[in-house]
Amino acid sequence: MSEHHYAVIMAGGGGTRLWPVSRKEKPKQLLPLLGNETLFQSTVKRLEQLFLPDHILVVTVEDQAQEMKQQAPDIPEENYLIEPAPRGTASVVGLAAMVLQKRDPKASMAILPSDHFIRNVDLFHYLLKAAFDVAENNYLVTLGITPTQPSTAYGYIQQGKPLNGEYKYPAYTVARFQEKPDEQTAQQLIRTGDHSWNSGMFIWRVDTILAEIEKKMPELAAGLAVIRASWGTKKQEDVLSQYWQDLKNETIDYAIMEKAERVAVLPAGGLGWSDVGMWSSLFEVLLPDMSGNIATNMNLHLAHETHNTLVYGGGGERLVVTIGVDDMVIVDTSDILLVCKTDQAQKVRDVVEHLKKHQQDKYL
Amino acid sequence: MSEHHYAVIMAGGGGTRLWPVSRKEKPKQLLPLLGNETLFQSTVKRLEQLFLPDHILVVTVEDQAQEMKQQAPDIPEENYLIEPAPRGTASVVGLAAMVLQKRDPKASMAILPSDHFIRNVDLFHYLLKAAFDVAENNYLVTLGITPTQPSTAYGYIQQGKPLNGEYKYPAYTVARFQEKPDEQTAQQLIRTGDHSWNSGMFIWRVDTILAEIEKKMPELAAGLAVIRASWGTKKQEDVLSQYWQDLKNETIDYAIMEKAERVAVLPAGGLGWSDVGMWSSLFEVLLPDMSGNIATNMNLHLAHETHNTLVYGGGGERLVVTIGVDDMVIVDTSDILLVCKTDQAQKVRDVVEHLKKHQQDKYL
Repeated sequence: MSEHHYAVIMAGGGGTRLWPVSRKEKPKQLLPLLGNETLFQSTVKRLEQLFLPDHILVVTVEDQAQEMKQQAPDIPEENYLIEPAPRGTASVVGLAAMVLQKRDPKASMAILPSDHFIRNVDLFHYLLKAAFDVAENNYLVTLGITPTQPSTAYGYIQQGKPLNGEYKYPAYTVARFQEKPDEQTAQQLIRTGDHSWNSGMFIWRVDTILAEIEKKMPELAAGLAVIRASWGTKKQEDVLSQYWQDLKNETIDYAIMEKAERVAVLPAGGLGWSDVGMWSSLFEVLLPDMSGNIATNMNLHLAHETHNTLVYGGGGERLVVTIGVDDMVIVDTSDILLVCKTDQAQKVRDVVEHLKKHQQDKYL
Repeated sequence: MSEHHYAVIMAGGGGTRLWPVSRKEKPKQLLPLLGNETLFQSTVKRLEQLFLPDHILVVTVEDQAQEMKQQAPDIPEENYLIEPAPRGTASVVGLAAMVLQKRDPKASMAILPSDHFIRNVDLFHYLLKAAFDVAENNYLVTLGITPTQPSTAYGYIQQGKPLNGEYKYPAYTVARFQEKPDEQTAQQLIRTGDHSWNSGMFIWRVDTILAEIEKKMPELAAGLAVIRASWGTKKQEDVLSQYWQDLKNETIDYAIMEKAERVAVLPAGGLGWSDVGMWSSLFEVLLPDMSGNIATNMNLHLAHETHNTLVYGGGGERLVVTIGVDDMVIVDTSDILLVCKTDQAQKVRDVVEHLKKHQQDKYL
């Protein structure tokens, strides 16, 4: 990669639909959900094959930073940007862009979630490079994921015309951003052939994005200017805290992407991408046996007349036996047992809300 | 009850279909499956309302005797008969009858399993008294249970003609004993209206049953004669062990009941009886909530879109959450988790066999 290309990992969130493994103390991206390494570690590894460690930034919150530094020791301490409190992806983008611009006025950045799975890393690298090329021409570039099912869990991006110019990969203008649809709409969208899932992966020059922020989010831009002035001084943290408090919580999609003019999408098929958003996602990511079952993080699963069932164990010696079980997710932690029909996995979030409401903090 | 009426509790078995709660070390009858008392304690309590404690005998094996003596301290030490090894119900009946005859030549006995549930104890007492009356006339009496479903888990008894004579409860000759049927046959049998389940509860005079053993099981009779001669001497245990080794393993049903002439059945409806034979039996015994769910031996069950599901916990603080679960049994012990479709609960036995075969002793 060029010396002016940087990767920014967004890693502040929770992941309540992966409860009871994802917990307040141990959010999704810090868990070894897929095997020996955590989603965060996989993300870092994937990027370290393309970027030097000092060209990788991590934006996170204080609670998680310590653990991340341990999990990714190659990334320099000063590349961890600590949000005083979560304020949405727009603020994260603004902060990272400001810091990078101060460091390298010619910087371009890819901003990427910390908790996604990508099977075909080579293709991902190829796409990132192609996206940086497109971004060079002042486009806000997004990687779209070719849908493999009529999911209602993602926003959709409709591609417009092919971009003028020669690129390593087909790039299109964006005709429209579409909010998470209902199932019927999702069915229609994926039949059109010109809609991608919004993966939350963006690539742009920092001067391009900062100019857009200036235009569409003048308050954030003003705050960033003050923060920038104190950045690197003793006052850095105090100033950041002060301005961060008053920021509106906005997503980059809503605040910038949907309103900007030069937006491009690279529709990516075959990445083997998953946002590992809920338990049922693990069927996309781990390899089921002949009966469609997956048993992971556990000692022994005896499956009788059991099909398409995921057992996620607690890591110990427990034996799990299933008899006559179909299309189920079983998550067996030390203090909580979850048994959930796979197609209702999104309701795990409601359970977490219920527990919050009833102050059952020890289970959160 | 008359001073010549005795109760004998048969309590040597296991109950593998209630695995993983019923274990080698803690068999079914010694577990508080239904609440605060064990099935054995419930059985003793039910009988102590009708018999003096010294008129209640327990036949069991060495491994279980100590625990039983603690659970039922009112029964005198000498009323525990210890089988050197399990040799089927025929031998148990013979031993108990011999011991009782030596103690009281006019004795009659009811022989009863230790691990059944009976909701309507008053009716049970009434039936026992009626059965002793019938037995007085040299009948081998059995309590039949009016079927409530076409079960394939029990043998069936077809009733014949009403007995001559005046009894407190309708009593019939037995037309036929029928082995555990397949489902189609079971459907036919329960439609006839003259078939009862074989509950394994028998009532007879000890001289009647010993005379039958003399005729139909001469080897057992010969052994019992020698054991009787040493009974109450120092040699008692050695002689018992020696003769017990060579005994054939036979059930009283097959060896005596099916071949005897004066056999009577009292068909009992409304007892609220269950043999608690497998996990699905708990739906007959415990009271489900409005959604048909049962949560027992546990802290907290959050049920979303869950119906007709039993959660049997491990007694601790664990939270169990079910989402979209129907007709399921979930048993959550400290070292084993079982998730089983209710109508396949009988297959738990196959799992136990599998574990035995693969020497997974720690899970047995």
